[in-house]
Amino acid sequence: MRPAVQLLAQPQLDAIVEVMGGIEPASTYISTALQAGRQVITANKQLVAAQGPPLACLGPLRFEASVASAIPIVETLADALGADRIGSIMGILNGTTNSMLAAMGGGASYADALADAQRRGLAEADPSADVDAHDPAAKLAILAMLAFRRRIDPSQIARVGIRDLGPGQMEDGRRRGFVIKLIAAAAIHDGARIEADIRPRLVPADAPMARVHGAMNAIAVDAEYAGSLIFEGPGAGPDAAASAVLADLIRAAKGVPASAGSLLATLADTSPVTVVPLGPTAPYPAAS
Amino acid sequence: MRPAVQLLAQPQLDAIVEVMGGIEPASTYISTALQAGRQVITANKQLVAAQGPPLACLGPLRFEASVASAIPIVETLADALGADRIGSIMGILNGTTNSMLAAMGGGASYADALADAQRRGLAEADPSADVDAHDPAAKLAILAMLAFRRRIDPSQIARVGIRDLGPGQMEDGRRRGFVIKLIAAAAIHDGARIEADIRPRLVPADAPMARVHGAMNAIAVDAEYAGSLIFEGPGAGPDAAASAVLADLIRAAKGVPASAGSLLATLADTSPVTVVPLGPTAPYPAAS
Repeated sequence: MRPAVQLLAQPQLDAIVEVMGGIEPASTYISTALQAGRQVITANKQLVAAQGPPLACLGPLRFEASVASAIPIVETLADALGADRIGSIMGILNGTTNSMLAAMGGGASYADALADAQRRGLAEADPSADVDAHDPAAKLAILAMLAFRRRIDPSQIARVGIRDLGPGQMEDGRRRGFVIKLIAAAAIHDGARIEADIRPRLVPADAPMARVHGAMNAIAVDAEYAGSLIFEGPGAGPDAAASAVLADLIRAAKGVPASAGSLLATLADTSPVTVVPLGPTAPYPAAS
Repeated sequence: MRPAVQLLAQPQLDAIVEVMGGIEPASTYISTALQAGRQVITANKQLVAAQGPPLACLGPLRFEASVASAIPIVETLADALGADRIGSIMGILNGTTNSMLAAMGGGASYADALADAQRRGLAEADPSADVDAHDPAAKLAILAMLAFRRRIDPSQIARVGIRDLGPGQMEDGRRRGFVIKLIAAAAIHDGARIEADIRPRLVPADAPMARVHGAMNAIAVDAEYAGSLIFEGPGAGPDAAASAVLADLIRAAKGVPASAGSLLATLADTSPVTVVPLGPTAPYPAAS
């Protein structure tokens, strides 16, 4: 029997922390734990984006670390902005590509920027999750479900990655006063129609998103009453993930309601909504 | 009998929201309500800074709106960063003076900037709370108590306001690559010695705090594991305050523990710690 299965079978278990990533066997482990009455804390963006609503119906599921690491955006959307109406969210949700774009802005080719990111442990051997924007699409799906209270299928979010970019485009953008950033954005119109996409965009050099450096993440939220809020911090790394996971574990120990999980659970019986791309002009002009 | 006293005497009351400001009669009303088993939500920074710890011993006290309005910094420090160790906090906590400094940066005199802020309803007839930095001192005391888990007397925080500044200093700063901002900052050293002050400082023009415009607020938190986090948003206004107050009211209705209040309650039996100024060099050079 696998160690994880043995662990889950222990009767005195109160909570499990899942940081293995991927859909299976994480999904089976989490279902088993929730059905047995355990608290579950996960950092698994892919799983929460794809199966968060049905899993959260099984018990208290907490996932602050699944998006932007220790930036407390998950609880903020579900709890602190629970009384508000959110119109749009926009952000830089992938530190690896943000670092690579910075290197290309300094003259590196795409291939060199990727090789350097792989050397530094930022990008994996198969870089597709980052450079083809699957990773930020999963994170954006989670944020959009919490912000708009609609079920969203992450595979429905249009993605343009950074493979086709190079130092020439970065330099051309800079001459015109722009920085190229991989922008994840979503908006809701008339309380119903949802637009979302991820693509490289030309961000004005003096905009807050332009000065998000290295592997940092940033998220801008526009709420009807709270106004325009911006959250910035390290988007990855073991220490930041540990801080977010431990915060969720403390909430579980204190019996704090799992606000974000409860919100996803309310979406379980609904079908994913249609998501159309924001397109090439807003929130910033497309860069490729 | 005053309407508030009549209201507090109603037996079916679950929660009260206090947005009157000032120490009395707010303190008496809140004590009465907490002792009668009501939930209390307040936006009163002055009262929470001065009497938060003893009041929070009486029952669930929530005060997200007391600092930086709808920026969810109170719950973030008490809850999301509950597992972390915070080394320093720094921010722009007063939108009125931030707007006035921007006007002076555009060439206005202190007197004209103040008159304009008063016309726009940003500054009061007696502007001392803003321009002499009593308001950000109260907010900094609340944040520092939550961040460092020590009791802090807001009157112990050294303050230098903006009365002595004018367009000449702003222009001189700009020529040298700086923007003058009223910076509230606090740090803890060796887990014990607390430094805090509020004063105009020369912020490098490319630093995040330099591009906090108008009546916006921003708070930077350095945590050992979560890293450097920045939160930005409108620091005042009725809509933003309402969003934060309603979020607390929803938490009260859901039975979410009052994390920040519980943290302050643990400090009630301790004496305020000694607070020394950060002084003229860090986090940025003093501007006056």
